[in-house]
Amino acid sequence: MDKGLNNSREDFPILNQKVNGESLVYLDNAATSQKPLAVLDTIMGYYKHDNANVHRGVHTLAERATESYEAARDKVAEFINAASRRSIIFTRSTTESLNWIAASFGSLVVEPGDEIVISELEHHSNVVPWQQVAAKRHATLKYIGLTPDGELDMASARQMITDKTKIVSVAHASNVMGVVNPIQELAKLAHQHHAYIVADGAQAAPHMPIDIQKLGVDFYAFSGHKMLAPTGIGVLYGKEELLNMMPPAQFGGEMIDFVHHQDASFKELPWKFEAGTPNISGAIALGSAIDYLNELGMANILAYEKELVAYTLPRLTAIDGVKVYGPQDPKKHTGVLAFNLWGIHPHDVATGLDMEGIAVRAGHHCAQPLMAYLNVDATARASFYFYNTKQDADRLIEAMVAVKEFFTNGIS
Amino acid sequence: MDKGLNNSREDFPILNQKVNGESLVYLDNAATSQKPLAVLDTIMGYYKHDNANVHRGVHTLAERATESYEAARDKVAEFINAASRRSIIFTRSTTESLNWIAASFGSLVVEPGDEIVISELEHHSNVVPWQQVAAKRHATLKYIGLTPDGELDMASARQMITDKTKIVSVAHASNVMGVVNPIQELAKLAHQHHAYIVADGAQAAPHMPIDIQKLGVDFYAFSGHKMLAPTGIGVLYGKEELLNMMPPAQFGGEMIDFVHHQDASFKELPWKFEAGTPNISGAIALGSAIDYLNELGMANILAYEKELVAYTLPRLTAIDGVKVYGPQDPKKHTGVLAFNLWGIHPHDVATGLDMEGIAVRAGHHCAQPLMAYLNVDATARASFYFYNTKQDADRLIEAMVAVKEFFTNGIS
Repeated sequence: MDKGLNNSREDFPILNQKVNGESLVYLDNAATSQKPLAVLDTIMGYYKHDNANVHRGVHTLAERATESYEAARDKVAEFINAASRRSIIFTRSTTESLNWIAASFGSLVVEPGDEIVISELEHHSNVVPWQQVAAKRHATLKYIGLTPDGELDMASARQMITDKTKIVSVAHASNVMGVVNPIQELAKLAHQHHAYIVADGAQAAPHMPIDIQKLGVDFYAFSGHKMLAPTGIGVLYGKEELLNMMPPAQFGGEMIDFVHHQDASFKELPWKFEAGTPNISGAIALGSAIDYLNELGMANILAYEKELVAYTLPRLTAIDGVKVYGPQDPKKHTGVLAFNLWGIHPHDVATGLDMEGIAVRAGHHCAQPLMAYLNVDATARASFYFYNTKQDADRLIEAMVAVKEFFTNGIS
Repeated sequence: MDKGLNNSREDFPILNQKVNGESLVYLDNAATSQKPLAVLDTIMGYYKHDNANVHRGVHTLAERATESYEAARDKVAEFINAASRRSIIFTRSTTESLNWIAASFGSLVVEPGDEIVISELEHHSNVVPWQQVAAKRHATLKYIGLTPDGELDMASARQMITDKTKIVSVAHASNVMGVVNPIQELAKLAHQHHAYIVADGAQAAPHMPIDIQKLGVDFYAFSGHKMLAPTGIGVLYGKEELLNMMPPAQFGGEMIDFVHHQDASFKELPWKFEAGTPNISGAIALGSAIDYLNELGMANILAYEKELVAYTLPRLTAIDGVKVYGPQDPKKHTGVLAFNLWGIHPHDVATGLDMEGIAVRAGHHCAQPLMAYLNVDATARASFYFYNTKQDADRLIEAMVAVKEFFTNGIS
């Protein structure tokens, strides 16, 4: 158990380094994951053998690049059990996916007087684009409340989601509280009221099996860089009939059928949404990341991370003055633990931990409405992935004790 | 001279392979360039040592990633001699940069009855976004014509650009005809009429020194992947005062100052335009690509490519039945040569060349208005970069002769 799930730690050369004289413990996976050699080798292999622009070329390299790029789309479709590869659009990131859904689909369907429903625990990328649509379309933005434990309050959801609701958009898993939201139940509720439902899967897709058809959502968004792929590649899933209704977010090469001087017609799905040269190597690397995750097994990853949290959560809360936000029951947690140490600013906590070689994040985690709800400005956050170990957790606990000592008594 | 400018060919492992039994001759650089080992090493180094999310972290890796990412912005600013790093926005591509200028800035300043002026030789990414703005804002889209030689007709430009013009948007260099447009002169003309000017630099920035202040443009767009960097990273340059006026194209993390429940305030430039996790490794690799290009010297690259074209153009046109589009004077050419072989479809020409190991593109090159203007459906296109050689040109010429033989007499 000391080399991560299936000894996977060995595949991540970045983890084998000293930071401030101590072995690195990387616990900032909710911000971005590290990349295994298999994914790095895929990128190098692509650029050393096959690199060309896709779709438009008849030469051998262009054909190879196009095949690999489109094969990556098939891998993504299978990874989330999408009914069709035409539902898979490559974007830059979850943020871009959500922006396109809000700006293109939201602006299309939201009418003055309609309501858009999000929740108190959303990342800014699932808040601000909806504020923009609401302002532009004279609609109202409403927030589903949380239980005292930090879970989505379904009683509040049932109050907020009504026949006035046009769109519901909720995180599948919180990037702060570590809770998993009942998307399937919310989808049913939204559809009962003839509303559309969007799920922000940035913190869920890397950590658990996703069955998009079972979830029943209309749109789903996630990022490659949080699940072993490089930065600059993300996914927008949409039901085919909705993507067909939706105008493209960007225009140019690759996405047109014919361009006349004064107007243009567009390609069919999925290319209609992929204007310009896409992030070809990023998409291919995401395919490789999915191969790696499938090899480990998403159910195994979920179980392993739950084990790490079950180990860490009680040890962290046992430190006097530490408060962990969200459910105290580890079973209700993903590998994300947001916490504060009484009387010490979370930036100081994170800086203190960095001195011990431990990388955690501190701040508002792009979730200021949630910070307001929790009545804090910021928290520290440790977030696990499958290559983390119980030794990593021990190091975090020991370092937290040391940080507390240092700020209390001035000695480390 | 047989290993590219400064023996640079050695730095590109992809070029050292056989395609269909013949040594690869890669002449599809206008679609995308190959990547030198130095750039690939930068990507690997980043992911093996420093990878973290930027701006939001206090731990060591996050600080290293942020420093490298922002240093890449400085390199881009210096590369085009921008007055300020705040003018440099990282995007996915030229296409995205142009879309943002059109959708955010265009929609802001274009009023009903205004005119938007582009040219007959634009890439679709500099056509369709303006069609959208024109339709949305009830403006008129006008086209500057070309001389019989395929150059921008400045007499036509003076007719088209009037006090009714709000925006002029023209390619700095054509992706088909190989001409370089007089952007500086167009900028003066546009500004005399109180219009804004945008230049699409996708085919210029990789091949010649760019001095954005001397050009006098308001906006400039280019892509990393055509200048040695990976796919998924591009640049939007805008004058600070114009970017300050312009609303963000996307919303979310990284770009906000504060998010309240019903509204949000945004960060200052350049971050206001970079919502969500950016393509961090792509930007850093673009910085490395710029280091590589600077080492060779952009003026040397320009001179070397002109030499290659001066060598190739007369030999290509000497083949009976070959027509090269655009100026016949090599001095007026970038390293892009679009051509047709009489009676043979350009796709067949490209397929025939691929059988000889030579990668060229065939099609409309995302420039259907220009194809209509030239009265063709498609052309073949060979495009050089500094790692190409006169031997590559010889191989192209020999293969063209063989392709012609094959399609005429059925023997190869």
